[in-house]
This record gives sequence, structure tokens and C-alpha cells, in this order.
Amino acid sequence: MSSPGRVAIFGPGLIGGSIALALRARHPETKISIWGRRPDQLAGILKRGIADAVEADPVDAVRNADLVILCTPVGAMKELAAAIAPHLAPGAVVTDAGSVKVSVVEQLTPILGKRFVGAHPMAGSERSGLSAARADLFTGAPCIVTPVPEGDAKAIATACDFWRQLGCTITMMAPLEHDRLVARISHLPHALAFALVNLVLDTLPPGSQNLAGGSFRDATRVAASDPALWTGILTENRTEVAASLREMAKLLKSMAGALGDEKSDSLLDFCTRAKHHRDSLPLPPPEETR
Amino acid sequence: MSSPGRVAIFGPGLIGGSIALALRARHPETKISIWGRRPDQLAGILKRGIADAVEADPVDAVRNADLVILCTPVGAMKELAAAIAPHLAPGAVVTDAGSVKVSVVEQLTPILGKRFVGAHPMAGSERSGLSAARADLFTGAPCIVTPVPEGDAKAIATACDFWRQLGCTITMMAPLEHDRLVARISHLPHALAFALVNLVLDTLPPGSQNLAGGSFRDATRVAASDPALWTGILTENRTEVAASLREMAKLLKSMAGALGDEKSDSLLDFCTRAKHHRDSLPLPPPEETR
Repeated sequence: MSSPGRVAIFGPGLIGGSIALALRARHPETKISIWGRRPDQLAGILKRGIADAVEADPVDAVRNADLVILCTPVGAMKELAAAIAPHLAPGAVVTDAGSVKVSVVEQLTPILGKRFVGAHPMAGSERSGLSAARADLFTGAPCIVTPVPEGDAKAIATACDFWRQLGCTITMMAPLEHDRLVARISHLPHALAFALVNLVLDTLPPGSQNLAGGSFRDATRVAASDPALWTGILTENRTEVAASLREMAKLLKSMAGALGDEKSDSLLDFCTRAKHHRDSLPLPPPEETR
Repeated sequence: MSSPGRVAIFGPGLIGGSIALALRARHPETKISIWGRRPDQLAGILKRGIADAVEADPVDAVRNADLVILCTPVGAMKELAAAIAPHLAPGAVVTDAGSVKVSVVEQLTPILGKRFVGAHPMAGSERSGLSAARADLFTGAPCIVTPVPEGDAKAIATACDFWRQLGCTITMMAPLEHDRLVARISHLPHALAFALVNLVLDTLPPGSQNLAGGSFRDATRVAASDPALWTGILTENRTEVAASLREMAKLLKSMAGALGDEKSDSLLDFCTRAKHHRDSLPLPPPEETR
């Protein structure tokens, strides 16, 4: 598995910044150019030495790049893809780090063709931005790669190698399968955190938050995430997220019903199954962000 | 604030064991007797030296005790109170660590009278049992004390002093106010954890749990809690827990509706308010269990 020679990263936030730091740590010979919208941010990147070049023009960023990684919000990707497509080197591969895949793959494949291989590294933090970036963000993190059936085997292998080189474990699935799974295993926990913290703090007497214990703090940790970023993610994956919210609402109403009917046996079964499931989760990677 | 001279602890689990360890660490002059149902557990307590005496008979445990703390499951308290009531020393105060208060106060006050002062130390862990007990479990943890209007000021002060001596911060409120608040700030997060882990792992393809990231792990951490203990807690506080589950279901359906209607502005407002609320939580105590 040879290291990527020249890499262009679009979007110097938590993910883009962590990719640059991980490459610096693991493959210091890689040439890194970073594209970003804000000049102050680009100056900060150069100062910290985590890129060889910073570019305000997408076309300059991808010149001679072997691999391009789109780490911007999902909503910005189509426009960027259209800007860079005519200027990509032959054989250059494009991947992304977006947390939804059906819409991204549907939008970018017609523009970029078979060189595009969608991906979703499942690493993150409730903190965002370059200041939260870490070289070990991807160590042991799952990365779902979502090739289309008619995809190019070489491009897929290049993209998988890249994410693996950052420390990810690769799982492949179709874009729709990804969105269904991720709606329930990642987007739903975020939506629940937003809803729980609002339900509790909108309605309880002032000062009640001082009585929050570990269960409330853990259940709502990701509610501190960037609201605009998460509104975008939930909206992009709206069909599956809405379905999962309705499934959850139904389950909560059935729990309320079981409590009202004093069906403690069925509640005990429910909680016992939950404990069994929870205990079956693999241990977190040692460097996981809390 | 003088230390309690002689303390009787009922139930040598996580809470009862941690009380004994905290007393040993902070007030080594206190005499501790522990009542438990299982002889092997009592032998283990003596071996670890965390009590001066272990008793299988409730009456023996409370002989000459200045303070009695009921740390058994809530469902076992009434019977124990009836057993010890005739044998308590004059001036002895009884408190408890149950996580619901209306039913406990209604059941125990007729039996124990004004010497009973309900309490709920909001410290815990997804682990249970004596092996998880820690001397610092209560350091910085809130403890809600729920005196009745006609309560005895001296007994209330004694109970508050005791919990404060273990490291708790005291908040006073009426039993019903406690149950409403705790349903939303503690029982609901537990119910959501049970429901989320079941929803996801009952329906996703096998192996999907390997793709769980930090958000799912944190949101479901407490689903690993003791199912029998939590079935008991949710059932004891059924009215308020069921109400909070229905409120949550309604909120989730309105989020699903906003996604379907592509009302991203209202979703952004919702997520922004959630971040604001979450950021307003006080920092966790330094020794909090994860």
C-alpha cells in the first residue's frame, strides 16, 4: 500500500484538519494542499505547518493532485466538484467525508464519473473546526466506503487504501444501505440528544441543570455539536432520519403504555434485551474522543 | 457538623458500599453496621474491612444506631421499615437513597414518622453491586432531600448533614417535584438508552454494532445498567416517566414533520437552542464515573 503522493483537502475543519495531521504523522512524504474559503484560516494552517500549500482557488488546489478529499459540508460539494472536474489530473481519485451518501453520490457521480468514490469516516467530536483536529482522530474508527455497482475497481482500491492509511477500518456498502444504517446509529442519537436537552431545559424550573447526572450528560453530549452542520446532515438524510424518529416515537409510546398497564414483565424483558445488546458493543478505540 | 456516631446501612450494593467506603475515608471514627440478605456478601464486607459489623437480622443492625440509611431497591424498603421501626433508638434518624420519592415517602412516613427524611443522592454508574463501590462516588454529586411539610427540623438537618459529609451538594424539594424532575433528567435518559439500543440492534443487519461511534456509545451507555433495578425505578415512577416518554415521542414526531416539510429554519433554531442549553450545563465533578 503506497502512500498518496500529492493530496488536496477541501475544507480545513475537524475532519480536513485531522486528515492533514494524520498524513503528517504517518506519511510525512505526502504533499498536502488545502483549500478553504476563509483567508485567516488558510494563514493559520500555513503557520502550523500542516500543509505544503494553501489555496483559495479550487483549481489551484487540485493541480497535479493524485487524490482529492472533499471535507466541506455536504451542501457545498456539488459546486466544488463542478469547479475542479475539468482540471483533475488523469487518474486522480476523489473521495469525500460526508456523513450522508445517497445524495452525495447522486450529485457527484455525474460530474466526476468513476473517479469518485464516496466515503464516510465515522470519527468526530462535539467540537468542530481546525482547533479540534487531531492526528489520531481516525485511529481505529470505522470508515464506510460506498462504491456504486458500475464503479472503477482501481479508484475504489485507492480510496480504501487512503482511509486505511489514516487508521480507519473499512466497511463497504451501497449508499442507501449506508444512509439507513447511519440514520439509526449516528443521526438518531444526535437528534435524540437535541430533543432531550430541549425537552428538559425548556420545561424544568431554572437551575435544574445543576442536578443533571452522568446519564443526562452522556445522553446529551453531542447536542453541543455545531447546529448548522447537524441541521445540514439531518436534512440531507431526511427520509431515513424522519423514519427513524417515527420508529423511536412509536417505541417510546409503547414503553409508556407498558408502564401505564403495569406490565413490568415486558419492561424487564425490554431492559434485559437492551443490556444484552449494549454489552455486545465492541470496546471503543483507545484514542476515542469523549 | 459532627460526624455520625453509629450508622446502619441497609443494602450493600453500589450505593450502600460507597457510603461505607466514604465514611471510612472521611470519618473513620464512625461505627458502621451493614445489613444484607446474602451471607456470602456479608462475609465479603467483613473481609474488606468496610464495616464494623454485618447483620442478617434488621433488628440487630439498627440497635443503638444514630442514623439508618436504606439503600435497598425501593420495593424492599416498606417491609424493612416495618421490621426496624419498633427497635430504633430514640432520636435515631432514617434516610434513604431511593431514586423515586413520592411512593417511598408515602409508604415510609406512616411507619417511621418524623424521623424519616427521604433523599436521593444522584450518583451512580451503569455498573452495580459492591464491587463497583467507590469512596468518592458522592464527591460533588447533587443530593435531593425531600422533607414533608410537617417534617422535624432536627431530623432534616441531621439527614442533610450526613449526605453533605459524604461530599454531596444538597437541594431540597417536595417529593412530587423531585419525581417530575428526576423522571426527565434521569429516568428519561435511561429509558431512551434502552429504547435506542433495542431499536438499532433489533433491526440493523448483524455486525452493524461494529460501526457504532461515540454518539451511539454515549447515548446508550446506561443501557448496560441492571435491568431489574431499572425496571423497578421506571415502574415506581411510572406516572411521570410515562408522561415524559409521551412528551418525547411528540417532540420526535414534530422533528420528523419538520424534516418532511423541509423546514430547515425551524430545525436550525431547535438545534441551536439545544447547543445553547447543553453548553449551559455545569462541568461534571472531577471524579465522575464514566
